[in-house]
Amino acid sequence: MCSHRLTLVEKRYLFTPGPTPVPPEVLAAAAEPMVHHRGADFREVYARTLGRLKEVFRTESDVLLFTASGSGAMESAVANLCAPGERVVVVSHGAFGERWVAICEQHGLDVEAVRYEWGEAPDADEVGAVVRQSGAGVVLCQQSDTSTGVVADVRALKAAVGAATLVVDAISSLGAVPLETDAWGIDVVVSGSQKALMSPPGLAMASVPPHVLERAKPSRSFYFDWPRNKRAQDALDAAFTPAVSLVRSLDVALGLILDDGLDAAFVRHVRLGRAARAGVKAMGLELFSPDDDSAAVVTAARVPEGVDGTALLAHLREAHGVTLAPGHAHLKGKIFRIGHIGWFDVFDIASALAAIELSLTELGAHIERGVAVARVFEAFETKVTV
Amino acid sequence: MCSHRLTLVEKRYLFTPGPTPVPPEVLAAAAEPMVHHRGADFREVYARTLGRLKEVFRTESDVLLFTASGSGAMESAVANLCAPGERVVVVSHGAFGERWVAICEQHGLDVEAVRYEWGEAPDADEVGAVVRQSGAGVVLCQQSDTSTGVVADVRALKAAVGAATLVVDAISSLGAVPLETDAWGIDVVVSGSQKALMSPPGLAMASVPPHVLERAKPSRSFYFDWPRNKRAQDALDAAFTPAVSLVRSLDVALGLILDDGLDAAFVRHVRLGRAARAGVKAMGLELFSPDDDSAAVVTAARVPEGVDGTALLAHLREAHGVTLAPGHAHLKGKIFRIGHIGWFDVFDIASALAAIELSLTELGAHIERGVAVARVFEAFETKVTV
Repeated sequence: MCSHRLTLVEKRYLFTPGPTPVPPEVLAAAAEPMVHHRGADFREVYARTLGRLKEVFRTESDVLLFTASGSGAMESAVANLCAPGERVVVVSHGAFGERWVAICEQHGLDVEAVRYEWGEAPDADEVGAVVRQSGAGVVLCQQSDTSTGVVADVRALKAAVGAATLVVDAISSLGAVPLETDAWGIDVVVSGSQKALMSPPGLAMASVPPHVLERAKPSRSFYFDWPRNKRAQDALDAAFTPAVSLVRSLDVALGLILDDGLDAAFVRHVRLGRAARAGVKAMGLELFSPDDDSAAVVTAARVPEGVDGTALLAHLREAHGVTLAPGHAHLKGKIFRIGHIGWFDVFDIASALAAIELSLTELGAHIERGVAVARVFEAFETKVTV
Repeated sequence: MCSHRLTLVEKRYLFTPGPTPVPPEVLAAAAEPMVHHRGADFREVYARTLGRLKEVFRTESDVLLFTASGSGAMESAVANLCAPGERVVVVSHGAFGERWVAICEQHGLDVEAVRYEWGEAPDADEVGAVVRQSGAGVVLCQQSDTSTGVVADVRALKAAVGAATLVVDAISSLGAVPLETDAWGIDVVVSGSQKALMSPPGLAMASVPPHVLERAKPSRSFYFDWPRNKRAQDALDAAFTPAVSLVRSLDVALGLILDDGLDAAFVRHVRLGRAARAGVKAMGLELFSPDDDSAAVVTAARVPEGVDGTALLAHLREAHGVTLAPGHAHLKGKIFRIGHIGWFDVFDIASALAAIELSLTELGAHIERGVAVARVFEAFETKVTV
């Protein structure tokens, strides 16, 4: 959205997979008068938020809450679980898998990456074999790699890696697709506030059960030190001044999610994914993300022949106030991504598809007009059982 | 403030040195609709905020902006400047000096701490001698240690440590008392959003000039890696999803501060400090923080004989909705602290003193009644030249 083209009153539409749209009541919570983080007013909000996080993570264990981007929570796992020189396995099938690799390398670990084509889903048996062969005690993966739309079967990955500690980056998937932290035995789950938790960015989390804390190494990070943060949190007294206003927002957002029920959210995300895929295909575009119900987080489509993807996204933003996400790295200009995580309903998908159809036509592409939106609504209505 | 005593509509008064009160227009900015951090709408805010930070830091160099508490920015200096085993000097005269020690120890540094009694100001000549003798290349200190109210002469410290890299924690002092980063040759200044910058907590900063970046070691932190964050920031493209709403708030707050002028802020803080000290003394209490104009950030007073400081602060909160700060560590229960950094005016000081006077009386202390508030206004009016 470019201010010299759009006026301030022209509407903006945010269809990106993070930051995602934030409900007005969640935004309003961030504007409440400041209170002290050690006073009773805040402690009440803090305790409730920590409790709600456990419900959303579906764990009985502590969920540590950091003031940081999601990458901070990712680094916390590496800094607390792995010693320099230690062999770890990273499962990489997109840009965020490569982020695990970069974090581990910066910490001096011996990284064995199991790499898949971007857009391909990891194979649990293959990962299990690599882990056994490598002797790695820690395995790091994504549940959803937002760069491709692929959602991995982390339940199968945990079954395949056995006793190794599995760290799952669920930054873009927590609250969108099922993740049964305790029931599936996932050792560590990291997430962030600005995706399906429909809150402003700036908070990151890591679920850390006692058996994982026992295996922790001396943390190489002071700020992200798990035992220090856990001790403080246990006393409802954050180790460092927390982002008070963001915690308030998160509290309200988690309340909205849990009032409706997590299962309802999972069903809605499947339906949103179906709607987005149906619309994309109806106008004759090719999907990049998988064409099945697993792709409930983000829908990625190839930009049609003869159109530059970067120009398409710029046109959407500048002419229509619509923000979609581009491709990462080698996919830049070749795909675009529609996020549908968090505070999304079918009319958002319809608007995104209508804007894409209009913009592609304006840029001279031959696109089948007028069918996508109807297909969006039809696909959204098909029955889902999760 | 305890919700079972105070009703929701009873007013709260926040007189703590961080989080500090946030002006309504700054809070309102945090509630604006979410935008994507890579879109033009946000880039404009981001660029302006980074520019305004340079003005407040009084530096031509980059000010790196992290989504984190202030301690994150402190750790960034240690992770980027010092190699494990390296000897560093920490100047410690309060709880936050001890935080430098803890961060350095967690990073495996060889820490030589120059310790002063809490409440005492560091002696630049003495620190200079220790630095020369130790051969340390990095010296870490506080400009203001919020735990005591002491503001150190960091200009003299820089002159005394010579070629060693001086890292100044100005988390509670930046924007409250003069800090001429470039003119005084201060190598690195770290700060946070939630003190004199009168914004919500959650953003931290570090000014990093080119000569310091050249001396940087390979960062032991991925998230706080200075070169990675600098490269991204140079392209107006944060390395990690920034706390969009907090950046918007900070932008508005910095605009308010700079419109009025930093020098006006420095004068106001001196006057606020005078007012607070005059009020404390007028009711017969003993100051813990220095009784001079350097103590412009926080005023600390000893709790009178026969009164428990913890009970006093609880009474202030629960009966009157007034939040003051307690003493840290061995000073807990023995002192209380009145913050006057950021969005404070003389009526706030008067209210804080009136509430203390009232509460002490209610707790049975023999306090001279009715003189403190008058003295607050008189002292505030005395002429200041900065």
